[in-house]
Amino acid sequence: MLPAVNLKPPFNITRFSHIVLEVNDVERSRDFYVNVGGLVETEFADGVSYLRGLSEACHHSLVLSPAKGRPTCKRIGYRVFLEEDLDKAKVFFDEKGLPAEWVDVPNQGRTLLVSDPAGARIELCASMTVHPRKFLEVHEHRGARAQGLDHCQVIVPDPLSLSAFYGELGFRTSEYIAAGDDLLANFMYRKGGCLDLALVPGVGPRMHHFAYIVSESSDIFAVCDFASRYGYAENVERGPGRHGPSGVLFVYLRDPDGHRVEFFNNHYTTIDVELEPIRWDAASLSTNVHWGLPAVSKWYFEASDFTGVRLEHPEKLPNPMTLERYAEGLTKG
Amino acid sequence: MLPAVNLKPPFNITRFSHIVLEVNDVERSRDFYVNVGGLVETEFADGVSYLRGLSEACHHSLVLSPAKGRPTCKRIGYRVFLEEDLDKAKVFFDEKGLPAEWVDVPNQGRTLLVSDPAGARIELCASMTVHPRKFLEVHEHRGARAQGLDHCQVIVPDPLSLSAFYGELGFRTSEYIAAGDDLLANFMYRKGGCLDLALVPGVGPRMHHFAYIVSESSDIFAVCDFASRYGYAENVERGPGRHGPSGVLFVYLRDPDGHRVEFFNNHYTTIDVELEPIRWDAASLSTNVHWGLPAVSKWYFEASDFTGVRLEHPEKLPNPMTLERYAEGLTKG
Amino acid sequence: MLPAVNLKPPFNITRFSHIVLEVNDVERSRDFYVNVGGLVETEFADGVSYLRGLSEACHHSLVLSPAKGRPTCKRIGYRVFLEEDLDKAKVFFDEKGLPAEWVDVPNQGRTLLVSDPAGARIELCASMTVHPRKFLEVHEHRGARAQGLDHCQVIVPDPLSLSAFYGELGFRTSEYIAAGDDLLANFMYRKGGCLDLALVPGVGPRMHHFAYIVSESSDIFAVCDFASRYGYAENVERGPGRHGPSGVLFVYLRDPDGHRVEFFNNHYTTIDVELEPIRWDAASLSTNVHWGLPAVSKWYFEASDFTGVRLEHPEKLPNPMTLERYAEGLTKG
Amino acid sequence: MLPAVNLKPPFNITRFSHIVLEVNDVERSRDFYVNVGGLVETEFADGVSYLRGLSEACHHSLVLSPAKGRPTCKRIGYRVFLEEDLDKAKVFFDEKGLPAEWVDVPNQGRTLLVSDPAGARIELCASMTVHPRKFLEVHEHRGARAQGLDHCQVIVPDPLSLSAFYGELGFRTSEYIAAGDDLLANFMYRKGGCLDLALVPGVGPRMHHFAYIVSESSDIFAVCDFASRYGYAENVERGPGRHGPSGVLFVYLRDPDGHRVEFFNNHYTTIDVELEPIRWDAASLSTNVHWGLPAVSKWYFEASDFTGVRLEHPEKLPNPMTLERYAEGLTKG
Repeated sequence: MLPAVNLKPPFNITRFSHIVLEVNDVERSRDFYVNVGGLVETEFADGVSYLRGLSEACHHSLVLSPAKGRPTCKRIGYRVFLEEDLDKAKVFFDEKGLPAEWVDVPNQGRTLLVSDPAGARIELCASMTVHPRKFLEVHEHRGARAQGLDHCQVIVPDPLSLSAFYGELGFRTSEYIAAGDDLLANFMYRKGGCLDLALVPGVGPRMHHFAYIVSESSDIFAVCDFASRYGYAENVERGPGRHGPSGVLFVYLRDPDGHRVEFFNNHYTTIDVELEPIRWDAASLSTNVHWGLPAVSKWYFEASDFTGVRLEHPEKLPNPMTLERYAEGLTKG
Repeated sequence: MLPAVNLKPPFNITRFSHIVLEVNDVERSRDFYVNVGGLVETEFADGVSYLRGLSEACHHSLVLSPAKGRPTCKRIGYRVFLEEDLDKAKVFFDEKGLPAEWVDVPNQGRTLLVSDPAGARIELCASMTVHPRKFLEVHEHRGARAQGLDHCQVIVPDPLSLSAFYGELGFRTSEYIAAGDDLLANFMYRKGGCLDLALVPGVGPRMHHFAYIVSESSDIFAVCDFASRYGYAENVERGPGRHGPSGVLFVYLRDPDGHRVEFFNNHYTTIDVELEPIRWDAASLSTNVHWGLPAVSKWYFEASDFTGVRLEHPEKLPNPMTLERYAEGLTKG
Repeated sequence: MLPAVNLKPPFNITRFSHIVLEVNDVERSRDFYVNVGGLVETEFADGVSYLRGLSEACHHSLVLSPAKGRPTCKRIGYRVFLEEDLDKAKVFFDEKGLPAEWVDVPNQGRTLLVSDPAGARIELCASMTVHPRKFLEVHEHRGARAQGLDHCQVIVPDPLSLSAFYGELGFRTSEYIAAGDDLLANFMYRKGGCLDLALVPGVGPRMHHFAYIVSESSDIFAVCDFASRYGYAENVERGPGRHGPSGVLFVYLRDPDGHRVEFFNNHYTTIDVELEPIRWDAASLSTNVHWGLPAVSKWYFEASDFTGVRLEHPEKLPNPMTLERYAEGLTKG
Repeated sequence: MLPAVNLKPPFNITRFSHIVLEVNDVERSRDFYVNVGGLVETEFADGVSYLRGLSEACHHSLVLSPAKGRPTCKRIGYRVFLEEDLDKAKVFFDEKGLPAEWVDVPNQGRTLLVSDPAGARIELCASMTVHPRKFLEVHEHRGARAQGLDHCQVIVPDPLSLSAFYGELGFRTSEYIAAGDDLLANFMYRKGGCLDLALVPGVGPRMHHFAYIVSESSDIFAVCDFASRYGYAENVERGPGRHGPSGVLFVYLRDPDGHRVEFFNNHYTTIDVELEPIRWDAASLSTNVHWGLPAVSKWYFEASDFTGVRLEHPEKLPNPMTLERYAEGLTKG
């Protein structure tokens, strides 16, 4: 059921790179991601906090910016390999009639701001300023000791047609969840892991969660312990548990503005071209987790809007389940 | 509110030692505890399986015996230090008018079978046959790699008065949960950890759970992974999470007959006489856990009867909460 | 001092893929890698054992083949992305006047056997047969629970000139060790980690070690414990310790024939084009390790010959240190 | 060969409790134990630092006091159960003609200062002031996250005769190393683990090392990583490795004054009276470790003198090995 993948895409996206969130109180959110998530702040400038994981050399993988209204997701960012890929991208988006404009972003090289067909706001760049990796600065480590940003999950009205778009850009599928002909989750990657981008159906585009890799399974407990210590025990929304697709240990937290962040341990590699997508049928709890309590309903329905982007409802809900019954079924285990 | 503790008890109970369960299918239950819990079988004789943890030298800490009817808890066992403590125990129970008879138990030294005032069936012995510890036989390790039996939780109609009985026997309290004057949990110990025996209120006596120590926090995930692999994913009843009292990481599973077993990482030591019991007030989620979803209702109400022992209802439910509302309050977080 | 890197190489090598060892007793070696390393055997056919890591879907990352004489390294293998990359590779090697012939290898797609300028024997292929990943088959896990093959270290007479060759093929350097103008170690990658190929100076070409990733730091201890349990305690040659370059936890073992294998935890990612190689100066213990005893001398000088390949001595030893004094200095800390 | 154990000793020593070191620079040493070992400082008063482990409620388990000359071990401390045990102890030492005087020690209850027959200086007390345990204050955790003090190893000229003295006080042996009739190590306990006091032969009395328990095997790596970060990489003297006797993972560090501290993961329990001591023969590397490089010679011969106590040489060196050849044999593996 999955659309074709273009193994020689028009330009080379290498990986999911960063995310820009608007938040009500930058310092409060920064402290959450530093103390509970274990990110380090590379820079605080003009009221904006630039954070990165302990193993990251890039200037930022998470940017916290003051919200002008409701807290939203401003942009998600991908890296392209070379500068010339940016120019090829400009041509590609122009030809598709999709928004694409050059923007100035501090601490990044030349940056192209585009929208995908679902309306998600996306930055493309080929470089950032570089900083020393912090994974051996053990005296500064805290919380989840998040190592690096891995992927983002986006809710869109029609994940199947959007999968075709990303397939054209060379995104391959590691695993997916389906109910009959309905695509309930598509886990797509560029960088040779399981995921750079997950697409799930619903009112969208909305940013469902972004995810950082941790280096030890005990870090999954640590993020909960630090959350508890810093007054965020009730922000532990789901888990710890083990996902069905990709098989990783996970825990989800809501940040002080309700943006959802996942911490999980590293998944397998998917570099080889002979690998086929793995299908999961949405028939039982075990589709979603190997063990662990089912997700609470709000895990399915709450997500972050993209700043200034109008929401679309799905033309057709997945059949035979509506989304609600799907969620309900899962929450009942 | 806690009763006095006798620091020079009439005989010397050193630790919670073993538990005897009646099960519908000994081999199925044995496989559960071996494959998921990581226990090793010391001996299988006369249809009975004798199991121990990887760090245990004693012949058995868990005995699985064929049930004649419903699966029940047959006995819980304590060690006394010396043979002469058994004789002193006989005198003590006789003087109290409590049942106490000498019984033959394979692989144990002289054994005294008694009932406590709540009717729980208890074995006392001073020795077992000894076997090599298995904690370095890494090629045989599985599941939780349970190291050793630690404690047992018993539901009784009046935990406060039973606490006085165990206090007379030298059981001290590490931590307890109370609501006003009502004792909702009393965590008592002899061996210098947090717990040998937990007493909680309700219809009883019933065995709520017994608990094995694991050696690494990742073992808490391992027990879930092995449970999933062996078809017991839905037997993961509660957790992983972190308890308030004692502060340990925990996970609870139901065995194939519904007996409840906890796996948790090691708790602190309590040898010193100057330590005072720590009180928790039953007012919020945080009384019970530092983080983690609240327990499902059945965690509070389902437990194993003692074989052939009549259940008593509490004269008075904890006030201001009834037990049900207490559980309900917790399950709602 | 490092040679230029070609960001648009003539064909696309994606990753270090597999290694073929000749061993005196295939079953004994297989048992070593299965019981101590934690690999799983995909197939045993015609006296050859095909092994892979728990997270690998490819048919084999380690092939154990019966030795006709001394145990040697038969070939090391790389993946190319597409079938057409193989044809481009054939042209490339032919034009260089380097050996390149098509060979039939079971369970691999079309395979090109080449020699690099140092004479190392190398297989290139674009696909293998695919098998279910085993990382959640926890009941089969053993020893290091090796997840996947990561890199290979090769001793060559002139690592600097060979670095130019691999740079032309798109291999970039993550980190390197130098003493003045002498290149003492070059850690090169294609797949976006720290390493696919390490080049170090000495009599060569010889295969110094190959390395598998483990998923938890406790697996580093586990491999030692399993080695001890299976009679290989003295095969633990170096470590556990933490490397300077790449910063990983490591342990090195010698297999029953003396081939050297490393187990280490995962290193950081290096996908972005702006990253510059990190230089380490070979002046102190800290060049080589953050902590841990210095390597024994044989770690520097013993390695596996390539089957049927003549050894060359370096024209010039690194200056100011000879290789021996280099090793001696390190072993004295 | 081991002397008898008195199961009803004249007074009740419950556990090894604390150690008092004299150091050249209290703040430097404090920082070492806090940043690398992970202890917390309960109090700094009159130039003395009082430290405890994360799971300890007692005021101090390590006391750092300014040295008047060479850094030495001032005292080692044991707990007795009740106040009356102190009075019984006074009678016992007086009758033996061993030094025993009441001393005032801040933050401890009534304290008896004694010497054992080998001249080691020992404090006995029944209580300390109590402080909140810190094991869940995760934001303050560092280094080894040492949980609690466990045991002390003392070098004495005649460990066999001193074993008889401690046997009379109820110390039982978990494991011991012997060469023929020579006792090379006696691992004795009171608290129901493997060790409170280890006795080894040599010029003495000297304090060889004291040891803290860590809660996860990864903490063994953490102490090395923090040592490296704080400039103490070369203070990692031995390990990581796994001991033969007791089977624990260990690492030894020298503190800034050369006092030796071990960090190890928890060992098994030994409460039951039927347990027999386990004998190891000092014939091979495997007597001492399951895997890991042999100890360097200084590990055997360097130790901390007791303040103001005259050293005695053994009358007779272990036969057939002299101590030196014993150490040499071990260091050669």
